[in-house]
Order: sequence, then C-alpha cells, then structure tokens
Amino acid sequence: MKALRKLKPGYGAELVDIPIPSIEADEVLIKVKATALCKSDIDVYNWTPLVASANYRLPLTMGHEFLGEIVEVGNAVRTLKVGEHVVGETHVPCLRCKSCWNNNMHICDNMGVLGRSYQGSFAEYIKMPAVSAINVSKDLPPKYGAVMEPLATAVHALMKGQVWGKPVVVLGCGVIGLMSVQLAKLLGATRVYAVSTSLNKLEKAVALGADKAINSRTEDWVQIILDETHGYGVGTAIETTGNEGIINRTMDVLQKAGTCVFVGMIEGGLNIEKYMDRVVYRELILTGIFGRRIYETWNVLNEYLDSGYIDLSNYVGAEMPLTEFERGLKESSSLTGRVIFYP
Amino acid sequence: MKALRKLKPGYGAELVDIPIPSIEADEVLIKVKATALCKSDIDVYNWTPLVASANYRLPLTMGHEFLGEIVEVGNAVRTLKVGEHVVGETHVPCLRCKSCWNNNMHICDNMGVLGRSYQGSFAEYIKMPAVSAINVSKDLPPKYGAVMEPLATAVHALMKGQVWGKPVVVLGCGVIGLMSVQLAKLLGATRVYAVSTSLNKLEKAVALGADKAINSRTEDWVQIILDETHGYGVGTAIETTGNEGIINRTMDVLQKAGTCVFVGMIEGGLNIEKYMDRVVYRELILTGIFGRRIYETWNVLNEYLDSGYIDLSNYVGAEMPLTEFERGLKESSSLTGRVIFYP
Amino acid sequence: MKALRKLKPGYGAELVDIPIPSIEADEVLIKVKATALCKSDIDVYNWTPLVASANYRLPLTMGHEFLGEIVEVGNAVRTLKVGEHVVGETHVPCLRCKSCWNNNMHICDNMGVLGRSYQGSFAEYIKMPAVSAINVSKDLPPKYGAVMEPLATAVHALMKGQVWGKPVVVLGCGVIGLMSVQLAKLLGATRVYAVSTSLNKLEKAVALGADKAINSRTEDWVQIILDETHGYGVGTAIETTGNEGIINRTMDVLQKAGTCVFVGMIEGGLNIEKYMDRVVYRELILTGIFGRRIYETWNVLNEYLDSGYIDLSNYVGAEMPLTEFERGLKESSSLTGRVIFYP
Amino acid sequence: MKALRKLKPGYGAELVDIPIPSIEADEVLIKVKATALCKSDIDVYNWTPLVASANYRLPLTMGHEFLGEIVEVGNAVRTLKVGEHVVGETHVPCLRCKSCWNNNMHICDNMGVLGRSYQGSFAEYIKMPAVSAINVSKDLPPKYGAVMEPLATAVHALMKGQVWGKPVVVLGCGVIGLMSVQLAKLLGATRVYAVSTSLNKLEKAVALGADKAINSRTEDWVQIILDETHGYGVGTAIETTGNEGIINRTMDVLQKAGTCVFVGMIEGGLNIEKYMDRVVYRELILTGIFGRRIYETWNVLNEYLDSGYIDLSNYVGAEMPLTEFERGLKESSSLTGRVIFYP
Repeated sequence: MKALRKLKPGYGAELVDIPIPSIEADEVLIKVKATALCKSDIDVYNWTPLVASANYRLPLTMGHEFLGEIVEVGNAVRTLKVGEHVVGETHVPCLRCKSCWNNNMHICDNMGVLGRSYQGSFAEYIKMPAVSAINVSKDLPPKYGAVMEPLATAVHALMKGQVWGKPVVVLGCGVIGLMSVQLAKLLGATRVYAVSTSLNKLEKAVALGADKAINSRTEDWVQIILDETHGYGVGTAIETTGNEGIINRTMDVLQKAGTCVFVGMIEGGLNIEKYMDRVVYRELILTGIFGRRIYETWNVLNEYLDSGYIDLSNYVGAEMPLTEFERGLKESSSLTGRVIFYP
Repeated sequence: MKALRKLKPGYGAELVDIPIPSIEADEVLIKVKATALCKSDIDVYNWTPLVASANYRLPLTMGHEFLGEIVEVGNAVRTLKVGEHVVGETHVPCLRCKSCWNNNMHICDNMGVLGRSYQGSFAEYIKMPAVSAINVSKDLPPKYGAVMEPLATAVHALMKGQVWGKPVVVLGCGVIGLMSVQLAKLLGATRVYAVSTSLNKLEKAVALGADKAINSRTEDWVQIILDETHGYGVGTAIETTGNEGIINRTMDVLQKAGTCVFVGMIEGGLNIEKYMDRVVYRELILTGIFGRRIYETWNVLNEYLDSGYIDLSNYVGAEMPLTEFERGLKESSSLTGRVIFYP
Repeated sequence: MKALRKLKPGYGAELVDIPIPSIEADEVLIKVKATALCKSDIDVYNWTPLVASANYRLPLTMGHEFLGEIVEVGNAVRTLKVGEHVVGETHVPCLRCKSCWNNNMHICDNMGVLGRSYQGSFAEYIKMPAVSAINVSKDLPPKYGAVMEPLATAVHALMKGQVWGKPVVVLGCGVIGLMSVQLAKLLGATRVYAVSTSLNKLEKAVALGADKAINSRTEDWVQIILDETHGYGVGTAIETTGNEGIINRTMDVLQKAGTCVFVGMIEGGLNIEKYMDRVVYRELILTGIFGRRIYETWNVLNEYLDSGYIDLSNYVGAEMPLTEFERGLKESSSLTGRVIFYP
Repeated sequence: MKALRKLKPGYGAELVDIPIPSIEADEVLIKVKATALCKSDIDVYNWTPLVASANYRLPLTMGHEFLGEIVEVGNAVRTLKVGEHVVGETHVPCLRCKSCWNNNMHICDNMGVLGRSYQGSFAEYIKMPAVSAINVSKDLPPKYGAVMEPLATAVHALMKGQVWGKPVVVLGCGVIGLMSVQLAKLLGATRVYAVSTSLNKLEKAVALGADKAINSRTEDWVQIILDETHGYGVGTAIETTGNEGIINRTMDVLQKAGTCVFVGMIEGGLNIEKYMDRVVYRELILTGIFGRRIYETWNVLNEYLDSGYIDLSNYVGAEMPLTEFERGLKESSSLTGRVIFYP
C-alpha cells in the first residue's frame, strides 16, 4: 500500500510502498478513507529540535487524525465488526497502570501513540488496538470524521476549564482555538473572546460564535477584555499560543479563582512574573491537557454532534489526494480548517 | 401606603393602607417599581391546606418577586446607596448557622423569607436586609427585574443538575419550567426535551429553544425521549410537576448516573417503585433545590444577562396595576410568563 | 475440578466435578486460592424470590470474591502474566457502551458478572476477562485478598458520600457496614456513628474506629446522633439495612445538603414521607452504589492497603475447606467477617 | 490601652498607649485574651522589601491571630452577644463584589484585613466587623483559640488539594507545614511525607503523624518519595517553602493529574523548567490559597476540633506577656508552635 513515511531524521518525508499491516488479537485493520494534517505532523516533517530530541523510531508512517472502515478484526475484539466506520483516538491506554487506574486512562503511563509508537494514518491502511477505535455512523462523511480528534481535544480543554456560566477567552485561533470558540459557546460560556493576530481567523471565530474577536497585533486585548467584563476578566482561558508573554498577560484577564488551560506548545521553561500576587493570592488554577479523556470526552462530543449543532464542514480547510501532501503542508498554516488527505 | 395583605386565615386578601415601614441598621427601604405574582402567592391567597398548616403570622403583606429603588439605607449598610435599583433575593441568611458556614447560605437554618417572616413586595414600599438585596442596572426595565428571582431559581436547578454536555428533560412547562428550557440550552445542554400537557406552553418551550416539545396528554413522552436518545435517556431531569406518576417515569428516562432535580411541589410522601433496580443499581442522583444559591446563582444569572442572550420579555405574561390583582390571579395559570403588578 | 454449583432452581447447591474451563484470547485462567462467601451467594443458595425472578441461567458455579494465581493467559492479554496473583473485580465492563464512555465503566450497559453471566469462584479454577482481574502482591495472604472486593465496595460508597471533614453515620453493621466504619475514619470523617441491633457487631464497630456505637434495638439512635452533633446531624449516611423505616429516619439525621448513599438491598418501592420538607427543601442528595468504580475505587483501596493502616484480618470471620460450605452458610450471619472457603 | 504598634516605616515597633477603639454598627469590640505571632507580623516588624512596597498605612497596631471576649456589639449585630468568645478570621469580605458573589468571599475584591486595613490584635482590645468574628466555646483556652486561624489556613490548603485517598507531601515544616501534616492525615491522606531541613521540626512532624520525615539537607527527598511510592509519586503537594528549586522538584514527585497547592511566599516570578513535559502533558494542577474559605473552612475545622482528634497544645510554642514581644520575635523561628502573647 501507499504510505507517507518518515524514513530518516531531517527534513521531509516520502510516499512509499509498504505491505498492508497484519493485526494482533486485540487490534483492528482499517482502510483509511480520509486523514487530516495536524500541526504535529508538520513538526515531524520539518524535524524540529523538539521532535529530533524525542526518540522517534524511524522509519515511521506519519498521521493520526482519520476516519476509516474496519476491514479485519482480531479474535479478541468483541465490540467492533468488519464494515463499521471508526475514527482514531490517537492515544492507546494500557488499562493497568497507575494513571489508568486513577481515572486517567488518557494520560496512561504506558501510552501508545498512533503515528509514533504505532504506524500512522497517512496510508491506505492503519492497524490499531480496538480499545482506541471510536465507532461513528457510516453516514458521516469521511472528511468530517477526520477532524473529530482535534475537536475532541477542544472539548477536553473546555470541560477541564469548566466554562459553563462564565466568560471565556481563547488565546490563539488555530484550528483547535477556533474549535474551542464554538465549543465554549455550546458548553455554556456566557461570552467568548477570541484573540489572534490573523484577520481571517478572527473572522472565522466570529462566524463560529465568538462574541468579540480581538486582533492582538493592533489592539490592547487585555484592556478590551477587562473593559468588556467590567474589570473582572474571564473565568477561563484556553491558551493555545504557548507564548510566554501572552501567558503572563492571561493571568491579568482571569478573574480570581479562574482557570487557565494550557493547550499550546510551550518551549522550555515557563516564567510567570509576580507569581504570588497574580496566581497564588488570587487562587488561580493553572493546568494543561493531553489529548482527550478516554472515553468521557468522546461521549460529550458525540452528544453535541448528535444534537446537530456542530457543522463539521467548518473545520475542513482543504481536500486533496495524499500524493499532494507537500501542497497540503504549504497551505495548512493559513487555513481555518484541517487539510484532508485521501490516501 | 397601599399594600395587598392577608389579614386572616382563609380565602382572599385585601388591598389596605398601612404605614411605610421603618428600617433597622442593616436594612434598606425600597420603593417597589414592579412586582411579580408567584405560584406560592396564589397558594397563600387560596389558603391551601399546606399553607394553612404552615404557621404564617398574619396580617402579612404578600409578594416577594420585585424590582425597586432604594430610598433609605440603614447606618450599617456599606454597599448600597439611595437611588440604586435592586431586586429581592427572597431568602435572608443569618451568616452564622451551620448551613451558612457549610457553604449553603441559601438553606440557612435561621432563614428569613420575604412575604413570610418579612412583609412582602405587593406594596408601595418594602424593607429588607441589605444582604439579600441584589443590585441591578438602573437601565433594566422594572418588569424584567421582577422576573429575575424565578429565573435564578431555574439557574440553580440547572447548575445542580450539571446539564452541560448532556441531554436534558424539563418536566412541566410552568414559568420556571420554561425558564429552565432556555437556561438549559444556555448552560450547555446538548438537547432539551420539554414535556407538558399545555399546547401553548409547549409552543413557548420551542420558541425558547426546546429541541423537542412533547405533549404528555397525547404522546408517550417516555418512549419518545428514549427513541430520540438511542435508548439511553437524558443526563438530567428538571422536575417541576410534583406528580408521583411522572416522577416514577422520570427514573426510566434518566441515563445511568443521571440526576433528577426536584423543583415542583410534592405533596406528602414520595414512593418510587423498584427503587433498587431503577435508582440504586443505576446510581441515579436524586436531589432538590430550595431557592437560589446566595450568591453564586445570581452571579451566573448576571453573566448570562450581561451577555445579552436572555430576552426577559419572554417571561412577562401580563402587566397591570396592583389594584387589579384579582384579575392577575385569574389569568396567571394560563400564561407563559409572570403577571406583573405595578403598586 | 471441584465446583460448588447451582444446578437447578430452588434451595441448595451441589459440589460437583466439572472440567477446568478453557479461556478465550482476552481472558485469564486462575487457580483459586481462597474465596469468600457474600450475602448474595446465600440468596442464590436459598433461591430467594428476587433471585428466582432474575433469570439466572443454570447450571452455574457460584461465588465471586476470591484471590487466585494466574495459570494461563489468552494471547491478547498484555498486562498479566502466569504466576501473578489477582483478585476479582466482579463486574466486567465492555468498554464500548454509553455508560463505559460516560466515565462509568462500573455500571456498564453490557455488564458481565462473575458468578452469574460468568462461572464463579467456588471452584478450583475460574476464568475471567483480564480487564477485571486486579493484580495484587504475591505476599498478600489469599484469605485477605478474598475480602478486598467487598472492602472496595465500602470505599466506593464512602467516596460517593464525600465523607472527608464530615460526621458520618453507618446504618447496619454487616461486613460492608463494618468496613465502612473503618474506611470512613481513614477517608477523613470527623466522627463515625455506627448503628446496629447486634451487640457483637457494635463492639467490632468500636474496635474498627466508630466514635459511638448505638444499639437501635434499645436506644433512640436518631436522638443520640442529633444530641451528639449539636442538633445538626451528619453530613453523610451509609445505608446498608434496606429498611424503609430506618431510611425515613435517616433523612432526619442528615444535615442540610447531606448525602445518603444506599448500599443495602431495598425490596420493591421506597416511600419517603414528607419528601418536600425533608429531602427537597433541605437539598439532600440521595444516591446509591453498584459495585465499585473501575478502576478508581481499586486505586484508592490500594493506596490505603499500601499505607498499612488496614488490618484485613478484621474481615476474615471463619476459614474452612469449600467442602464444608454448608457450615459456612450457617455460621456467616453472626460473624463480623467473611467466611473464607479453600477450594 | 496598651498596643504594639508600627509607628513609622523601618525596623521595629513600639508598645504604646492608645484609646480603646469605638465600634460601628456592624462591628464588635473584643477584649483580647491571647494573640499569636505570625510570620507576616515578623515581616512587618523587620519591614522587609515586600512589606515596604505594600502601602501599609501607619501607624498601625500589629497582629491578627487571637482569641478574645466580646465586650460590646454594634446595633446591627444580630448573631453575637457580649460575653461570647471569638477568634478572628483575618479577612473581612464585603458580600457585594464579584468574588463574594462567585462563591469566593475569602478572596473578596474589597477585602479588609485585620492588622492592616483594620487595627490589629497585639493590643488589649480589637474591634472588627461581626461577619469575620468566629464564635468558639468559652471552654477553649485562649492560647488554643489564638492558633486556630493558621490551623484553618492548613485546612483550606488540604481541602483544595483534595488529599483524601492520596499520598501527600508537605514541603517545609514551619507551623503551617506541621499543621498540614496532621490535618492531611485527618482528612484522609493515605501517607504523608514531611520534608524540612530542621531536625526538631521533622521530629515534630513524625509526632503529628507524618509517615516519613525527610531531611532535605542530607537526603535525596525526591528519590525517597519516588521509592516509597513505587515510582508514582504523591497525589498532592502542600508547598510552604516558596523556594523555586524545591518547587521545580515538586513537579517530579507529583503523580500525573496531581495538585500542587502553593502556600509559601514566592518572591517575584516563578520559573518552572520543561513546563510542557512536566506540567501540561501530565495534566498537573497548580494553584494557591489565600487565607481560608469563609466560612466553609472554619466549619470543617470546627468538626475536627469537635471530634477531639486535634490537640491544639501542639501548636503553642511559647507563652509570654505582650511586653516581652521582642523575646517572642527572637525565639519564634526555631519553635514548632506559635508564640502566644498575653496583652
């Protein structure tokens, strides 16, 4: 089969022919119908310092956001059948470690990861443990299924931020930021402020329900949010930029006892100035997310999808055959939705 | 001043002249600009058996839902000024009892109650402790302020039912039921099912955001909800009917680990059949509400009102001078909003 | 192998020879080293009306509380090895249903049950899915491992009752009641009141840490608890009697906003008198438990066992070969610990 | 009356004669029977840079931890009477601001502070708003009442850290650290690790229930805790040192999804290295506390005191007349309990 693979360290990846994988007893084999390009795939392609230092075992088929059809099930798989459609939960829990037993399967101590410890989805077929295959309706267009995993990430961030009944700021309007804007409104946020430096992303944020979109390049976003909230600030911040300066200012737009949920990649250390006055005495809660709760996040996402209030086409930015992946990588950063590849 | 008073036990009430009340150091005197008719006022007027047995001390000025302007403040009142507008939190906590100290001021062991242990709002003036006067904008039309207290009751019920990310059923579409429909959507419910026997109330429920309105007189509401939810049922039920039969069936439309919030008046005992199988083994949570959390509920309501997503005119059913209270009592049961009296 | 089996409806059970079970890919075969007699086993033996109506498929090997050594693992089992010791979580989740995905694997919609849908542990060998085999130290004496499952049930009840920082009453001092007394203290209850009609069980409750043991046959337990708590009552009640009269009085010893956790078997319906005044207006929380959270409860229990503060010998009431099961059944009701059978 | 006052900026304070304060309508006048020396009093005495920059209005009577007898009540005070004994909650909420209405009266936006915006307790009399006077039994020895406020601080930290069912580390064994050790055990921690550089404080920690006391000057505390916890670490850290190096290592002894509660004074910024890997991906929760929840924390403390399991004499380090305050300041740092002054 065709697969987009990272063959060796350094820039780039190659579309090569490899055998269709064979499955183990607790796994399923899936024909990939659509797969989406995540920021982390681009980092692997570019072989950023963080990726280079992370002990990837190469060669490796890239990709992990996808919808596919099950074509084979292992003999220990009781709850999935050939012909069913699934999307991939990227993380595979062991169900035995301290974290799995502490109600945190999604941060399993022995975590398997699609596109990293497992071969990825930028291929005609992918195999994966049944435990992390998320069944979806056969009526769901594949390109929409391919964006469910990042959408679930946003759900997890917002649930952790307990946004209901509170004003919320979303810092950064990449795809997960934009998803967070829409889901914040669905999950009961009273007002949603979207902050970005990109005009078209701010426009999209408004279209997705942001009550106010603020261009942090040209406007004083901190002052605007304080003005809009009678000086109190927001109850929850969803931080997707990873920028230390923005993170520091975020402390100033959070109400007392507010929560900052870190989603974006922070390089190295994080220094927060005047920590006592801004964080401790004000009893802020700083926390982060990794992936999605297995399976609670998916259940909530399914409820919202089932209600019909989420139009997934919002999150499809471009569609192309996997053979044109280089074009997809180039176009992706300016899009407000994912690039979808068809293998 | 004019005041609508219950002078003696039995049916009825009278509009009489009484002196304007004098305040104590921790109280404020308020000129009532609009006051709303609650179901409990009608019970007092009709002198139902429950009311008759409840040791009301008569004579008593009725009423407790209102907006007014402060005309005098006691010398110990530091946070309110003459000229400000307030609505009344009906319940007055002591700040010293076990419940107040256990983070439950709203179910204070020494609770004062407007229109019961304090003289009520169906009058030109009302006095009350500052601690339960809720300041509002002077721009808020008085009739809208007069419906905030029941709206806050709905907020409390929905917060306690933790409706975000879940399908919800609202049983009964009286005014608080209708308010619950709208607020369930605002607070993140994925779908809201409204159940009532009244066609015009069901229509109003749909207008307020109900995803499905079910006429329990002509339709099998339990089956419809199970069908709509793939057989799983809802995560939360807001029960406003107080009807034992409906409450029993509600157990059958709740998902495992779901919550039933009792809001409606239940007479005498409550018998739930097959308690083990339906409640215990399924780990349902049965709970009720009394009033509104002081002050948390008001804070959440203020956030939603501030966001502009609640049109309070939905909850005003009729307006008339207090002198026409008898007409108000007659008309109220068929309305989908409160009767507003102007004293 | 020898197995104690229910061969047909009606009173009794028989010790018979059957083949050692063969396992499937996701299962393990376990040599049972010790197994404990649960109240529900006695109900099956006696074939009570509730059991008779519950569609047990016979013949069936009884029993579900046990410790054993793994002697064979299926080819899809990645986290357990031959030679390891395990105890059984009685309930087997599917990991695919609504409840499993809603963070409630322990009340799975497709629940498998040891000793019911699976053959039980009153036998030389038992097979079960690896997902519900709880690994324990090889140093743990088998009889102690055999009482961990009911101990985990108590942990689940107390966690759900959020007992930390609160006075607690435990109604009924059967084995799970007694376990609840000790665990309430470990989990931070400020005072624990134990209520029973049995003198020797009350003595045991005191030995396990009850601050006060009350004989409900001879003392006014409601008044005593109110007196001891300055009239406020307790924050949490752990109800193991299933008795409607006791349950009604329990409402009167709960503080406002207190929680009643139903653990004991309630036959038929449950009628609570004056529901509005006692439950709704006081915002009580009524809920129940089924089994143990998978796996969170086990994690907490393991932490306490690891700390060395629980002496499991407290919960072993008698030990005998499985061949003497009829004696075990007779003796069990008066014991303050489990009867342990050695197959 | 005699009062220990800070008359001007710079080192020192003076015992002077000033008039007995007169009270306002919502205040009480209290004869101080015992008052305790807090670390923050020493900072004011020494006029540290942080204090110097904090806009204290001088002259100011110092002190805020005390027990006294009410000798006069304002005419708006309904729940306290002359002759009753009270201890002081240092913080005075306004009951009207966003934080007070958001269920966080203890971090009021208009907070009054005894010994800062109000005159303090190092005097024969103190006046304060009734809202923050905590009534206690007349049987409680004054010196014990004087240590309740810091004890409540520890309760708040542990409640926020949700320590029940988890191993806990307490970093630093000053008085609040030591209190945290004892309260962690009472609140259900499975094991408590105490870390300090002081041998006598570690000894005291063990006496108060620490399962293991670790001398961070001579031992590798991180490795010891990891070894003791099978490599998983603790569920909650109570951080009282304010030391950046220790805080960074604390991230390494926290389990995934664990909580770090900041209690100690952190100067300036806080830099946490490898923030993504250690905090975000592991979903740690970083938060801090300010004072004590009003009144929830006091309610929990009262329950534990009422249970008789806390011997307050543990926290009295020395007793002397207020006239010897200079000796008290000198001795305090080496003590494992508070210095008590008798005015």
